[in-house]
This record gives sequence, structure tokens and C-alpha cells, in this order.
Amino acid sequence: MAIQFTTTPIDGATLLEFEIDGGICEPSDLANLVPPDVDGTGGVVISGRGPVWLYAALARHYYTTQWVATFDPRLGGAVVTSRHSRTAPPVGSVVELPKKVPE
Amino acid sequence: MAIQFTTTPIDGATLLEFEIDGGICEPSDLANLVPPDVDGTGGVVISGRGPVWLYAALARHYYTTQWVATFDPRLGGAVVTSRHSRTAPPVGSVVELPKKVPE
Repeated sequence: MAIQFTTTPIDGATLLEFEIDGGICEPSDLANLVPPDVDGTGGVVISGRGPVWLYAALARHYYTTQWVATFDPRLGGAVVTSRHSRTAPPVGSVVELPKKVPE
Repeated sequence: MAIQFTTTPIDGATLLEFEIDGGICEPSDLANLVPPDVDGTGGVVISGRGPVWLYAALARHYYTTQWVATFDPRLGGAVVTSRHSRTAPPVGSVVELPKKVPE
């Protein structure tokens, strides 16, 4: 598969990072997309360099989780685009991600 | 509101075009977003120059329609990112849009 996923638990959510082999993916890759399972009791933060339609498909895929956000490098945080619970961060709020620490 | 929507009936779908006043929108604009009603018996094609999170929020908003696609200017067509019906174009297929004719 041309798209690799990495999941990392963060506070109340799963950070879902994708990486596209060679940097280019095709619409047909969506047909075979198998995003990883996440803890549905939290949110999902989608991050990666890819086309809008990949984000739209992933946001749709995870819509049953508590909330979904997409990382925006210009903001340095993730924007909540939908939520299922009133205790989730509101749509339109910006969720900060933990700083990455060197391994 | 900073985001204007235009809907145009196309073959089996509604073309939903958005335009951001001044070209810049803020995450907080999502909280007050009121996307227009569309014919839910067809698909929705989302098109416009805007951030990934706006697309993700709009794709989520219209998920009850038959299918959702996002326009990709590089492809010159719209990529289907989700569908509700087996008669809808499959996820990952590219839907061509009608050429615009001068008014």
C-alpha cells in the first residue's frame, strides 16, 4: 500500500500520522485504504502531507470517534472538524499537539 | 459570515462551491458554519480554495447524502471520498465536472 499510518496515543486522542510513499498518491488508493483502528472513546488527530480528498476520506472514516481534527501546519495545531460528544473540544477549536521528544 | 456558498445542480449531484472573503478563514469560523441545504438524493461535490479542515468539516456535514467528493484542481475532477449507496460512484473514483459556460 502506498500510504503508511502511524498511531500515537496523545492526551484524550490518537494522533494518526500518514505518510505517502514517494509523496504521491492516486484517488484509486482510497478504494483500498485500510486506516488503523483507534480508541474510539477519544478523538483522532489526522496529520500528514497529502491531498484534501485523503483528509476528507479519513475524517469520514473516523467520524464515530469522539471527535476528529486535522493538523494545520500553518496554525501549528489541529482544528476540530466534527465531534460526537458535548464533552469533546468544540468544532472550530484548535488542539495543540505534544512536542515531539527525541527518542 | 466569512464564507460564501454557491450551489449548482449538476448531473446526479450538487456542486457546492465556497469562497472565503479575503481568502482567509479562521478555525473559529467552523463553529458558525451554515452550509446550504442540498438535494440529499444525489451527491455533493465540494470545491473551493480553502484549508483542509474546512473540507473535512464540509465532507462530514454532507455525509448523509448519497456521496461526497472533493474537487482537486490538479486532477481537474472531484475525488469521491465517501458514499452511502452502492449505486453511487465508488470511493476513489474521479467525477468530471461539467464545463462552465459563459452566462
